[in-house]
Amino acid sequence: MNKKKAIISVAEKTNLIKILRNFKKHKIELISSGGTYKEIIKLGFKCREISEYIGMPEILDGRVKTLHPKIHSGILSDRNKKLHKKTLKKLNFEEIDFVVVNFYPFEKTLKSTKNHKKIISNIDIGGPTMVRAASKNYEHVTVITSPEQYEDLIDQLDKNNGSTSLSFRKRMSEYAFTETGYYDSIIANYFNKLSKNKFPKRKLISGNLVENLRYGENPHQSGAFYSREIDLNISLLNGKKLSYNNYNDIFSALSISKSLPKNTGTVIIKHANPCGVSINKNKIKSYKMALACDPVSAYGGVVSFNFKINKKLAIEISKIFLEVVICNGIEKSALKILSKKKNLRIIDAYKINLIDIDNVVSNFNSMLIQEADNKIFTKKDFKVVSKNNPSSNTLKNLIFAFNVCRFVKSNAIVLVKDLSTIGIGSGQPSRLDSCKISISKMKKFQNTHDHTEIVAASDAFFPFVDGIEKLVQSGVSAIIQPYGSIRDKEIIKFANKTGITLLFSRTRHFKH
Amino acid sequence: MNKKKAIISVAEKTNLIKILRNFKKHKIELISSGGTYKEIIKLGFKCREISEYIGMPEILDGRVKTLHPKIHSGILSDRNKKLHKKTLKKLNFEEIDFVVVNFYPFEKTLKSTKNHKKIISNIDIGGPTMVRAASKNYEHVTVITSPEQYEDLIDQLDKNNGSTSLSFRKRMSEYAFTETGYYDSIIANYFNKLSKNKFPKRKLISGNLVENLRYGENPHQSGAFYSREIDLNISLLNGKKLSYNNYNDIFSALSISKSLPKNTGTVIIKHANPCGVSINKNKIKSYKMALACDPVSAYGGVVSFNFKINKKLAIEISKIFLEVVICNGIEKSALKILSKKKNLRIIDAYKINLIDIDNVVSNFNSMLIQEADNKIFTKKDFKVVSKNNPSSNTLKNLIFAFNVCRFVKSNAIVLVKDLSTIGIGSGQPSRLDSCKISISKMKKFQNTHDHTEIVAASDAFFPFVDGIEKLVQSGVSAIIQPYGSIRDKEIIKFANKTGITLLFSRTRHFKH
Repeated sequence: MNKKKAIISVAEKTNLIKILRNFKKHKIELISSGGTYKEIIKLGFKCREISEYIGMPEILDGRVKTLHPKIHSGILSDRNKKLHKKTLKKLNFEEIDFVVVNFYPFEKTLKSTKNHKKIISNIDIGGPTMVRAASKNYEHVTVITSPEQYEDLIDQLDKNNGSTSLSFRKRMSEYAFTETGYYDSIIANYFNKLSKNKFPKRKLISGNLVENLRYGENPHQSGAFYSREIDLNISLLNGKKLSYNNYNDIFSALSISKSLPKNTGTVIIKHANPCGVSINKNKIKSYKMALACDPVSAYGGVVSFNFKINKKLAIEISKIFLEVVICNGIEKSALKILSKKKNLRIIDAYKINLIDIDNVVSNFNSMLIQEADNKIFTKKDFKVVSKNNPSSNTLKNLIFAFNVCRFVKSNAIVLVKDLSTIGIGSGQPSRLDSCKISISKMKKFQNTHDHTEIVAASDAFFPFVDGIEKLVQSGVSAIIQPYGSIRDKEIIKFANKTGITLLFSRTRHFKH
Repeated sequence: MNKKKAIISVAEKTNLIKILRNFKKHKIELISSGGTYKEIIKLGFKCREISEYIGMPEILDGRVKTLHPKIHSGILSDRNKKLHKKTLKKLNFEEIDFVVVNFYPFEKTLKSTKNHKKIISNIDIGGPTMVRAASKNYEHVTVITSPEQYEDLIDQLDKNNGSTSLSFRKRMSEYAFTETGYYDSIIANYFNKLSKNKFPKRKLISGNLVENLRYGENPHQSGAFYSREIDLNISLLNGKKLSYNNYNDIFSALSISKSLPKNTGTVIIKHANPCGVSINKNKIKSYKMALACDPVSAYGGVVSFNFKINKKLAIEISKIFLEVVICNGIEKSALKILSKKKNLRIIDAYKINLIDIDNVVSNFNSMLIQEADNKIFTKKDFKVVSKNNPSSNTLKNLIFAFNVCRFVKSNAIVLVKDLSTIGIGSGQPSRLDSCKISISKMKKFQNTHDHTEIVAASDAFFPFVDGIEKLVQSGVSAIIQPYGSIRDKEIIKFANKTGITLLFSRTRHFKH
């Protein structure tokens, strides 16, 4: 009987020696070329060069090495068909039983250079072809595409006397197709990005498993967390594993924290909605004012600081039950204090790699994709439409309120005092109801008799005067809202009649 | 000078004659094999067979045809390098300038058979290799992967005297990589499904563009709508193009409609939340009772009927302004009435192909994937924990309320009377607030003095007695809720003290 054969071509050479030893042990012949061939020889193993094996030199600077019928017949032949056996024999071809291949590092190259030629030269053609051929013929051929699979392969060979089980080969084939699909999705997305083709005819979204979750939003739903394009690098400094809902809240929190001026902002999230946001250079004040917006709802919530947590703040945070604390760095003494709460998850956002790619929502077999709503507002996005002009302080508060508004589920109304939310109305089909909710929060938790100015923002236009009327009755003296209602004029008239300041925004900010 | 060469291998032969004519016009030589070769000859064009071209027969039942250095050197050689030219000449190889290839119809095969061998045999190896090689070398080679590109190719050849522009080649190459990535993602997902590997190490999600949208959730965000796995087949019977928010609401509506007993249910959606749900065998009643839950919010909403719209219902629907009407069939006379509203979008859900695949939410470079929450409830999922036992009618209303609850954004409270919602509290960080909202809706729009039983459902447990207390004070006499609070016992005690019926559910239903 002929000896079994393995073709090896690996860009990633980690742990190569382990399988070489095992192949030798089971008297499996090696075929290789280029860098891998040299490495195998250097490690002291016997190996045939592909060029010698196929009887033809490597040509075109290595562009054509393995794209040869002797290789691919060896991989693709059906061992159960006599005719295939006969054909191979006649052509002096031989069966190839193992394909150990990983690809030119296209993705890695993308991260290290912007040189298009260099990037393109890292598109592997021969590798994926061998892997795809072997995967298709998994009934007879074992395909290994990652050093992580070496241990399993060695186990298999030892257990099966130099062979592998069908179920193992099928599993490796399944993995291999996710590899080739992933590889080409990264290439396609690179080309799409180059040509600014945001919504190509065929969209490929690929993710790397970060972790399987205990469950999804609810215990009867399975769930998992993936990263796209680059590693997210979310690491826990303390606490239990993150849950699906934790992750969901964390991204809600981070999108708001990112939008706030550096080193000033606190955000508290509950059920993916903010229930308190505040900016203040004084860390304790920033936290306390965010908390004051709805101290009841904050219970069990996610708090995100875009600044470093010090000891004093840690003591404050410790006073209530929170699920997750996100910080931008944390002092050792502060971590020590917070770590006393065994279940409190602490995350250092400083280390998280966030990149803004398109938002995706997929229900059933549908998929909605859109740019993230990450518009940065400046004065010129707004127009004063009332007779009253806002003071610079009022304007600051209005812009802050409008910014928070876009992160609140529609319909959203946000009341603000001193650059802190004091009432958030969210998730209502009726805008008037969102107004009422924000007002009742304010009345419940705030001292509204201190004569500090209260401003309001709405994520979309008011269809009627009634919402604005409610706000003004409750003490709001400046409002910012997108224009677009057929009753815009009525609303301006009402603003002037009541002497409030009214700003129209160019953009609305629905979020569902 | 040598003649230009095109290699052609197409599973999809539509419009092939068009490019054959044009290739002939520009004196471009054809190389092909198998079915494509036969078709070309049949259509009356000259063509060389691949086996003759490479000097080797097609072997292994056609498994190895094009995987030959003469083909791949011809595709991959760098025309700017003298050495490459020299090598080709020495080996009697020739440059190949056009690759017109589409693949074995793997996806189509998947839809038509469950025979694994047949499916596997439709994994194309040679085709994707040629396409990937040509795409990599787009600087010199034109790759055409779909009959839709033939017109453009013909334009190019006519304009450039038998050549193509670099920008065209690059565009075709970009498209080709989305094709190969897409092809392998379908294969990988097939294998993942076979092995029930819901969350593989690398997840590939691929979509087919249904349409570019005017914009996303807001005008400053671009957006597009894709289908996954199979065509959704959403077709408009009437009205303007669907918007991002329309689509989003439609899927919210359909998920609820699907969960209701057939031919009885009406769902009204606003801002992705239900603002009225009712089941009744009488179509008009079903609609009117759903509408009565919040007739103000229904304005501009999406209404979904899981039954056929007749004339009488159409007249009712016409009375208010709606954005979208979804039906399960519509009578001609009814369509005529509704079509008078030029802007009203009408969709026949009967024709929509919905399949339940995993839900995906992607923000930044994160991706949360979970099973859909499509649990069907039966009595045994609930446990009566109060002394009072529910009547069968009460139980029906409770299960209906709990079912609606899982589609309302958390925290969710749903009040029900006569299998119709009469108060929905949604999207609140505080459960007590959701109770208050649902109650205030009920008080605003319902006659609460008719002594019909009112029941309530909560999507998760009550952390305190206060929420339940509010509900009971407002006339609720039966409540269904998941268990799990440390105050469950207190809540049961309260139920018994006030004489209401209390059911605990095994599952909670967060939705964010």
